[in-house]
Amino acid sequence: MCPFVRGFSKADPIRQTRYMSETAASFTSALNFNSAGLIPVVVQESQSKAVLMLAWMNLEAVTQTIETSAATYWSRSRNELWVKGATSGNTQEVVGIAYDCDADTILLTVVQHGGACHTGDNSCFDQHQVALS
Amino acid sequence: MCPFVRGFSKADPIRQTRYMSETAASFTSALNFNSAGLIPVVVQESQSKAVLMLAWMNLEAVTQTIETSAATYWSRSRNELWVKGATSGNTQEVVGIAYDCDADTILLTVVQHGGACHTGDNSCFDQHQVALS
Repeated sequence: MCPFVRGFSKADPIRQTRYMSETAASFTSALNFNSAGLIPVVVQESQSKAVLMLAWMNLEAVTQTIETSAATYWSRSRNELWVKGATSGNTQEVVGIAYDCDADTILLTVVQHGGACHTGDNSCFDQHQVALS
Repeated sequence: MCPFVRGFSKADPIRQTRYMSETAASFTSALNFNSAGLIPVVVQESQSKAVLMLAWMNLEAVTQTIETSAATYWSRSRNELWVKGATSGNTQEVVGIAYDCDADTILLTVVQHGGACHTGDNSCFDQHQVALS
């Protein structure tokens, strides 16, 4: 088969890296995605330091987030990429991205426009809090 | 079978609530654990607001954390409860606990004694950071 005439599947590593910036390729190559191809993402507001939400990304979502600076997740309920704020307008401008010591969690630092929660709250953790001391 | 003479298995709801405080029972009853019986936990330092780590809890770990105020997780690699700092001394004193709008993620607010990361770093996210703007 001619190597220059071929289809690219989503699982094809050539396709996955072909259009990826050096920053995205370097970052994503270190990540440990789970058996479903996903990684949890903690989202923190850059000024207030509030933890806004936890979401999930696949390789494509991480890459798109780094290359566009618009937080993009994988919706596990809809099985599709989800640019945060695409319908609500409550976008997240990404100013920093990090992964942890096990490379199995991402920390995203964002400027949040409008509420981060689908309820309209600033944070998804605003409603159910218990003080323990 | 006499209902008053029975063994309690870990999955037995009577055993799970029998020794649980009202706060723990109320909090845990709202949670949506995943198919493995676990829920992700974002850990944030109360003063600095730094995100320290992501860990996982099962029902027993959530209950023990609320009742002792010592952060207790489920180790997915060792398959056992894990009181943070039990061996390192780097304990986490829990001052607040919250769950999110979908009740499928916990946010723990802690006073961290020593570094939170097994590498000695303050946060597990200290080493691999990329600024995007």
